[in-house]
Amino acid sequence: MASWERFNTIPAGRVISASVALGVLHPGAMGASVAAAAATGGARVFWSAAGRSAATRERAERAGLLECPDVQALCERCRVVLSVCPPEEALGLARTVSDLGFAGTYVDANAVSPATARKIAAVFDPVAVSFVDGGLIGPPAWKAGSTRLHLSGPRAAEVAALFAGSPLETKCVGDEIGAASALKMVFAAQTKGTTALLAAIVTVAEANGVRSALFEEWEQTQPGLVARSQGMAPMIGAKAWRFEGEMREIAATFEAAGLPAGFHTAAAEVYGRLAGFKEGPPPDLAALIQRLRESSD
Amino acid sequence: MASWERFNTIPAGRVISASVALGVLHPGAMGASVAAAAATGGARVFWSAAGRSAATRERAERAGLLECPDVQALCERCRVVLSVCPPEEALGLARTVSDLGFAGTYVDANAVSPATARKIAAVFDPVAVSFVDGGLIGPPAWKAGSTRLHLSGPRAAEVAALFAGSPLETKCVGDEIGAASALKMVFAAQTKGTTALLAAIVTVAEANGVRSALFEEWEQTQPGLVARSQGMAPMIGAKAWRFEGEMREIAATFEAAGLPAGFHTAAAEVYGRLAGFKEGPPPDLAALIQRLRESSD
Repeated sequence: MASWERFNTIPAGRVISASVALGVLHPGAMGASVAAAAATGGARVFWSAAGRSAATRERAERAGLLECPDVQALCERCRVVLSVCPPEEALGLARTVSDLGFAGTYVDANAVSPATARKIAAVFDPVAVSFVDGGLIGPPAWKAGSTRLHLSGPRAAEVAALFAGSPLETKCVGDEIGAASALKMVFAAQTKGTTALLAAIVTVAEANGVRSALFEEWEQTQPGLVARSQGMAPMIGAKAWRFEGEMREIAATFEAAGLPAGFHTAAAEVYGRLAGFKEGPPPDLAALIQRLRESSD
Repeated sequence: MASWERFNTIPAGRVISASVALGVLHPGAMGASVAAAAATGGARVFWSAAGRSAATRERAERAGLLECPDVQALCERCRVVLSVCPPEEALGLARTVSDLGFAGTYVDANAVSPATARKIAAVFDPVAVSFVDGGLIGPPAWKAGSTRLHLSGPRAAEVAALFAGSPLETKCVGDEIGAASALKMVFAAQTKGTTALLAAIVTVAEANGVRSALFEEWEQTQPGLVARSQGMAPMIGAKAWRFEGEMREIAATFEAAGLPAGFHTAAAEVYGRLAGFKEGPPPDLAALIQRLRESSD
């Protein structure tokens, strides 16, 4: 019997219990909150320390997570592994977990296209692993009502049960792998797509010397837009670095559905130019515009 | 003395008077309202009948416009010519007017990029013609407070004076040819850009079987979006055919400013697919989605 079988074998017909061992890869800002929510739901929640930053350790400890030395140990100990990572790392992380011989339920909760979700599902041996597709909508899930984990796939309800009574709301959106990811894609297509479009518009207005004329026009016709333009800069400053990959997944989702990818390839370019704001103080609108104009040279 | 000189020579230092003869090319839904506004302002307003549709004649007569047999006659009679036409026809129309030997003030009020506006200005002999750049924002100008004509260029104020006391509000946005067009571009980049994006998002959601899940999510987080999605279909049905060219002008405006053109090349494609709704009853959202999906084959 391989070492993981002691922990991971799921007897036929048995549903995941509240005391399940759950591994979260990795506790970033969002992942830590999801891990904490599962702990609230009664699971023993593990994280993997090897190669992670001091900030991740701090988040994991603050959330009361149990430490595994590395991903291998986590895969051996946990019957459910939940992946919360940048979209461009999701497939590689799943391959690592599969290669380590993980057996149990694997939840990919990342902002990836339905096609990528299916590709991730396909790296696992279906006898050993039940794959559940997931998509997180909202800010880190510290407050009830703020954040939802959408789930799809035959075992979606079992994963949802892990978060019962926690601040993280769950919704099952069908049996099909890809449905939860599709919902995440179209939701983010609107929120992050329109924000990128707004940033680009204000920059083009500035470049043409008509930004204050545009703001006057907006004040008259759509008063929310001026405040939104002013307010978006600090938010984008903190998050743009991790939006580029997500925009490319959305572009691929549009293309696969036969719709033009250009909205989100453009959004990817906008966020890519702003990625440098990850370090340093949050920018104001003027700094945001300047960066978007500089990077076009 | 050429025939037009009898009507068009502007003595040095003389400003355009309230009884000026103004030609409007052509009285479409918007053009007719602008023409009527100028008539309210005191101008004698002409239209050109040759080659125009019965609908245009009806609009012109309803607006009380004076008939010229053709563009040549209009150019001879009028000291100000105002161009309100689809963006892809703006340059050709200006060339026609220039070739006919027009002298006076030419206002291009079309949804074109600043570069196209400057190209249009350049077709005229600057000794014979004062070029004024314009951009219309809002619906046809039948009601005070609904619609603004932004103007730029050295003679912008004289054109603005033609609409004093009319329902069409005017604003001068500087001396530079291209400023008024830039303002129009960035304003429409937001309104028509986000509408095209929304139509595409809802279609991608439908294609992935998650449209009702998306609407549930929107109801919870951004309740206005569901109503906006439902409401956009009839509007798009009537207008999409004339938005494609405008989206391409906006894309060019973004590119010239060093920002990605993709948002609006994608929007152009969306509106292009929906152009066929010009004829027939206004579509509902389901019909809109179906057309966007069909056209992707």
